[in-house]
Amino acid sequence: MTWQGRRVLVTGGAGFLGSNLCHALVQRGARVVALDGFLFGGGANPANLADAPIELVRGDIREMDLRNVCEGTSVIFNLAAQTSHMGGQNDPLADIAVNAVAQVRLIQAAREAAPDAVVVHASTRQFYGRAQKLPVDENQPVAPPDANGVSKFAGEQYWMLEHRVRGRPVVSLRLTNCYGPRLRIRDARQTFLGIWLRCVLEGRAFEVWGGPQLRDLTYVDDVTEAFLLAAATPGCHGQIFNIGGPPPASLHDIADLLVSIAGPPARYVTREFPADRATIDIGSYHADDRAFRTATGWEPKVSLEQGIRRSLEWFRPRLAEYL
Amino acid sequence: MTWQGRRVLVTGGAGFLGSNLCHALVQRGARVVALDGFLFGGGANPANLADAPIELVRGDIREMDLRNVCEGTSVIFNLAAQTSHMGGQNDPLADIAVNAVAQVRLIQAAREAAPDAVVVHASTRQFYGRAQKLPVDENQPVAPPDANGVSKFAGEQYWMLEHRVRGRPVVSLRLTNCYGPRLRIRDARQTFLGIWLRCVLEGRAFEVWGGPQLRDLTYVDDVTEAFLLAAATPGCHGQIFNIGGPPPASLHDIADLLVSIAGPPARYVTREFPADRATIDIGSYHADDRAFRTATGWEPKVSLEQGIRRSLEWFRPRLAEYL
Repeated sequence: MTWQGRRVLVTGGAGFLGSNLCHALVQRGARVVALDGFLFGGGANPANLADAPIELVRGDIREMDLRNVCEGTSVIFNLAAQTSHMGGQNDPLADIAVNAVAQVRLIQAAREAAPDAVVVHASTRQFYGRAQKLPVDENQPVAPPDANGVSKFAGEQYWMLEHRVRGRPVVSLRLTNCYGPRLRIRDARQTFLGIWLRCVLEGRAFEVWGGPQLRDLTYVDDVTEAFLLAAATPGCHGQIFNIGGPPPASLHDIADLLVSIAGPPARYVTREFPADRATIDIGSYHADDRAFRTATGWEPKVSLEQGIRRSLEWFRPRLAEYL
Repeated sequence: MTWQGRRVLVTGGAGFLGSNLCHALVQRGARVVALDGFLFGGGANPANLADAPIELVRGDIREMDLRNVCEGTSVIFNLAAQTSHMGGQNDPLADIAVNAVAQVRLIQAAREAAPDAVVVHASTRQFYGRAQKLPVDENQPVAPPDANGVSKFAGEQYWMLEHRVRGRPVVSLRLTNCYGPRLRIRDARQTFLGIWLRCVLEGRAFEVWGGPQLRDLTYVDDVTEAFLLAAATPGCHGQIFNIGGPPPASLHDIADLLVSIAGPPARYVTREFPADRATIDIGSYHADDRAFRTATGWEPKVSLEQGIRRSLEWFRPRLAEYL
C-alpha cells in the first residue's frame, strides 16, 4: 500500500498520537486532514502540527456534521477520545459522549461519505481491568475498572460491528501506555510518564505512586508504525489486537532509568497510591501482542532507554509550548 | 427482607417485566412508583398498570430530573431500556442514549437522592453474542452482536462500577427471552414469542425463522421472583447473574407446543432467517444460571407448557388492549 497522494483523516489529529501519525503520513506523501475538537484537558496542542502541510479542521465530533471531513477519505485513523481515567470518573457523561455516542455519529457519516475507507481505531488495554494473567492477550475478559473503560469498550465494539454487519475494513488496536514527543506533559492526564518528564525538565522531584506495578511503554514511533501497518495489512482487517512495547518494567525501575538518563537534579519521591485512584487502579499490566507481530511483522524498535532519552531531548527546547 | 411499606422505584414500570414487578410489589405491601417514558416501539402500555395502587410517573430518563423519583427509595428495580435488537441497529443513537447515557444520569441522581438504595439492574444475554459453549455461564466472553448489545453492556458496567467504586449494593440479572402476561405482542420487538401469541390469538399463521436454534424462555412470574430475591439477598449484591428458565427447546418445538396448546386453527410456516437479521443472529442460547440458583434458592417454577397456556388465557379477553 502506498500512502502517496491518498487523502487520510486523523481524528484527534492535534493530539499526541494523532499528530505524530499526521507527520508520519505527510512524510509518506499523504494528503492529511487532522480533525480535532481541542477538548479541555485533552492532548490537543496547536504546536503538535507546526511546520507541516497538514490541514487542520477544528470541530467537535459530538456535534459537527462529520460527512465533509470524511468525504474522499481512503483511510481513517480514529484517535479522537477522552482518554483520562480520572476525567471519565469525574464526568462520565462527557466521557461517553466522545468515546461512544460520537463514534456512532462518525460511523454513520462514514457510511455516507467514505463507504470504502479503512478504519484503524485507537482502543485501550484499560477495559481489561486487573489482569487475570500476565501478559494479557486479546481473550482476557472485559471488566472495565472505570467509566473510561466502559465508554472506550463501547466505542470499539460499535466499530467492530461495522465490520461484522456491513463489511467495512476495521482494525482496533488496544494500546498500552504510550510516550514520546508531543505527549501532554502538563499534568498526568496522558500516562504517569507525562508529568514525570515535566518535573524532570523543570528540575523538580516527581512522584511515583506505588512502585512495584509493571507497565509496558510504547514509544510513539512504534505506535505510529503499528497504525500504518494495521491499515495496510488486509489480513488485519476485522480484528482486534493488543499493542505492547519493549519488555515491561516496574514503575520504580522506570523512575530510576529516567533519573539516571536525565542526571542531577532529577529525583523522585514514592507515595502511597491515592485513595481516589486506588479504586480504579489495575495493578500490573503488560500486553501479549504476538498476534499483531505475527500478522504484520511489527515489533517495537525503540527501547525504553532510547525512548526516554529522545523524549527529553525533544521536549527540552520546546518546554514552554507544552506547559 | 419485608416489602411492607417500602418505597420502591421501578424504571420501565409500565413495560412488560416492570409492570409485572409492580403488581407483585403491591401485593407484598410496597409503595410502588413506576417510572416510564412510554417510548415509541417499547413495551410500555397503560393497561399494564390497571386496577392497582401504583403511582405512575411519566418521564424520559434521558431528559428529566431523576432526583425526585429516587427520593426516599430503598430499592430501585431498573428495567427502563431500549430492548429491540433491530431497533438498536436502526437507531443506535437513541439506543445508547437510553441504555447507557441515561443510566449514568440515573446513577448520578441516585447518589444524591437515594444513596443507600439497593439496585437490581435488568441486563441481557444479548451481549454474549454467539455462544462459545452451551449452556452459557457468566464468564463467557462479551462479544456484542449488535448495537443493543453494546449499549446494554455499557449500562450494566456503569452500575457495577457504582458497586465497586462507591459500594452501592447492585445486582445485575442477565435475562434471556421472557414471556407471559403484559408482554408486547403487537409485533416482534419483545421476543419472537410475542408476535407468535398475537397471530395465534387472531387465528393467523405465525412465522418461524430458522427453527433448530435453541432458546430458554423464562415465564414472567419466575423473572419477577428472581428480581425480588436479588434485591433481598445481600450475598447477591455486587454480582452479575445469568437467569435462565426451564430446559431449552428449539424454536420448532416451541412452535409445535404453542400450536398444540392453542388448537386449531393455530399454525405456522417456516421461513429462512431474513438477511438483515441473520447478520445479528446469535444462534442457539441457553443460560447456565446455577450461580443464581445457588445464591438464592431460586428456580423456575413455570414450565413452558404452563406458561404458554397461562399467556394465551391472559391475553384472550384483553387482546384489544395489546394491539
